[in-house]
Amino acid sequence: MIKVLAMYKNPIITLLSDFGLVDSYVAEMKAVILSINPSATLIDISHNIEPYNVRMGAYILARIVEYFPEKTIHLAVVDPGVGGPRKPIIVETLKALFVGPDNGLLMLAAEKLGVNHVYQIENRRYMLKEISKTFHGRDIFAPVAAYLSLGVPPKNFGKEIFDYVKPSYIKPKIFKNKIVGEIIHLDNFGNIITNITQKHLKTKNITYGKSFQIILGENKPLKVRFLESYFQALKGEIFALVGSGNFVEISENLGNAAKTLNVKTGTKITFIF
Amino acid sequence: MIKVLAMYKNPIITLLSDFGLVDSYVAEMKAVILSINPSATLIDISHNIEPYNVRMGAYILARIVEYFPEKTIHLAVVDPGVGGPRKPIIVETLKALFVGPDNGLLMLAAEKLGVNHVYQIENRRYMLKEISKTFHGRDIFAPVAAYLSLGVPPKNFGKEIFDYVKPSYIKPKIFKNKIVGEIIHLDNFGNIITNITQKHLKTKNITYGKSFQIILGENKPLKVRFLESYFQALKGEIFALVGSGNFVEISENLGNAAKTLNVKTGTKITFIF
Amino acid sequence: MIKVLAMYKNPIITLLSDFGLVDSYVAEMKAVILSINPSATLIDISHNIEPYNVRMGAYILARIVEYFPEKTIHLAVVDPGVGGPRKPIIVETLKALFVGPDNGLLMLAAEKLGVNHVYQIENRRYMLKEISKTFHGRDIFAPVAAYLSLGVPPKNFGKEIFDYVKPSYIKPKIFKNKIVGEIIHLDNFGNIITNITQKHLKTKNITYGKSFQIILGENKPLKVRFLESYFQALKGEIFALVGSGNFVEISENLGNAAKTLNVKTGTKITFIF
Repeated sequence: MIKVLAMYKNPIITLLSDFGLVDSYVAEMKAVILSINPSATLIDISHNIEPYNVRMGAYILARIVEYFPEKTIHLAVVDPGVGGPRKPIIVETLKALFVGPDNGLLMLAAEKLGVNHVYQIENRRYMLKEISKTFHGRDIFAPVAAYLSLGVPPKNFGKEIFDYVKPSYIKPKIFKNKIVGEIIHLDNFGNIITNITQKHLKTKNITYGKSFQIILGENKPLKVRFLESYFQALKGEIFALVGSGNFVEISENLGNAAKTLNVKTGTKITFIF
Repeated sequence: MIKVLAMYKNPIITLLSDFGLVDSYVAEMKAVILSINPSATLIDISHNIEPYNVRMGAYILARIVEYFPEKTIHLAVVDPGVGGPRKPIIVETLKALFVGPDNGLLMLAAEKLGVNHVYQIENRRYMLKEISKTFHGRDIFAPVAAYLSLGVPPKNFGKEIFDYVKPSYIKPKIFKNKIVGEIIHLDNFGNIITNITQKHLKTKNITYGKSFQIILGENKPLKVRFLESYFQALKGEIFALVGSGNFVEISENLGNAAKTLNVKTGTKITFIF
Repeated sequence: MIKVLAMYKNPIITLLSDFGLVDSYVAEMKAVILSINPSATLIDISHNIEPYNVRMGAYILARIVEYFPEKTIHLAVVDPGVGGPRKPIIVETLKALFVGPDNGLLMLAAEKLGVNHVYQIENRRYMLKEISKTFHGRDIFAPVAAYLSLGVPPKNFGKEIFDYVKPSYIKPKIFKNKIVGEIIHLDNFGNIITNITQKHLKTKNITYGKSFQIILGENKPLKVRFLESYFQALKGEIFALVGSGNFVEISENLGNAAKTLNVKTGTKITFIF
């Protein structure tokens, strides 16, 4: 018998992966979870993370954690090292639990909530009987998330570790008259999301209504206004604003800035004041 | 304390948006809802509405409302005017509630059910503490839908308004020997869905088995049979039938009529009898 | 009144279709189900089955059934024959129930669990009042799945039949020095999934670490290693492994083998030893 500390009523388990929405992989994970805990509430974050793109997964996961209620369990699988020596882990924070591979995917989000403990998943009783070499999402992470949702304490799954992977997310470089950052995401509307925050702009005295220049990759400099909302921009205007994730975004009102400016994630972006 | 009139057991909240399925925006709305009402049953309608395409969102939303049970709450966000003067509203009908921007998105569906009252959302206690200028779906509409699902009466959210946006959906023009309509949607199978109904065909004495001509945009006229089901058509035949949404559709049996005929939403379509 | 044998607490109904994720078709089915059984737990398998591709739907459905708990109801609609003489059926197995068209879609999965009975759906009381000629997913299959989830016994829906469609899935041909199979699926990572199993390789004495040649369609022969996990391959190496569905897959480590080798589902693949 599995001993549990407490039984939550409808525990939330979120799922994030690079599995896409054509194959059955996501459904296989959900089937495993519901077989162990039929009361789990399953919420998809995104399964359209670019294949193997741990960093994109980490960014998306970090955006959502503050909005979920306490005791939510976040199951995330972008796992190019599956079948190799990378560890399966549980990250315990005050507010939420995370389950996934030890490759940095979970830590950007977990650090936002404050990491209490990291455990290596070792206890075979909380895994499927047969463990494939290619799909730990289904065979290890899904059952572990389900048992966590039943109230099994994280420490029961394996020993605490301290040498987990801590991703170094590139911070923008601040110069006297410029900030050099990079594009961390292009969203569904073509908003170009940078790793530069409103705080950075404040140090350069950029307030709403002021303008500055941006250089995207090898493009020519482009003058943009810093506005408070899409609505303030002219139709088709390229401008800067603070997005709902608190990063500075370059947007095109009623258009697609990423397509218009032809940029990619990872491209260098320079703000000149 | 929030006072509620009644507590439904597993209230249904549907979600429709142009947020796509890559980003975390949909999950952020769901997280906010479940934080307020953990018992809500969340059903996605579509998050692949073309960005900013209010009309497409209105069409998809209007298709589904009759199939959901009473007291369903429909949360819809296609919101190019976010951050501007457009109002956030609740639409009360006998059967369902709607939450979203006052830009016509909700009204095609709401009018199908009969509009009782429209309220402007003003009461800050039912919104997130911090309200971004770019994502009212998460900061206003999601919490409002959640509080509605707890039984908070619509009138508690703000004053009743009467000057809400009523979309004028283009009706087909009826002539002696022809009907001029337009393409309102192309579905996953390439079915070309028009704004012409079976009623219109009846006035022209078109019954199953009869043929008529269609002109799509600037294309040459094409003779099509009016059939009752895909099955009656020959493989690859382009034909007309009444789709499951009660509009006349131009279809290709086991093919993709939209690709074959190379048409777009909004294209003029003429039926000649 | 509908008489029911038993009421399950939160019965699982899975949904698979070729309806895509843009239109409202999936939501219409869910609305019908929840109107009949508000306690149903709805789990999407995939709605991105290639339009009309019954075989792809059958493959995806067969992958997932073993992972779901007992009494799960699988609703699957890839239904090019809708409106024609093909029968709507319920397939009863010991572990699960299946609802969908009698075109082979359900049988690969059902045979995995052991078919007990197949019933033709005839009883109009378990269908929507108005039945379209084009969307039995919503008008027949969804309400039938919902009533099954309330505990209505399968035999109440119609007479038992024995002449249901049994799909003949092509088995690989075994020769002295080669196996000739075909590509049954290309997944989100570009893994090329064949109908050849590990058992077949064992009969040819292929164990982990050994190499053999593959010929894909008209391509030149390619030597590949048979490995246990992605991790063992070099970056960009094309290799063979046993995937999580127990079929032999041709993969590219951290790449997309399907794109690199430019192959399609249905292509012949020959293993030469």
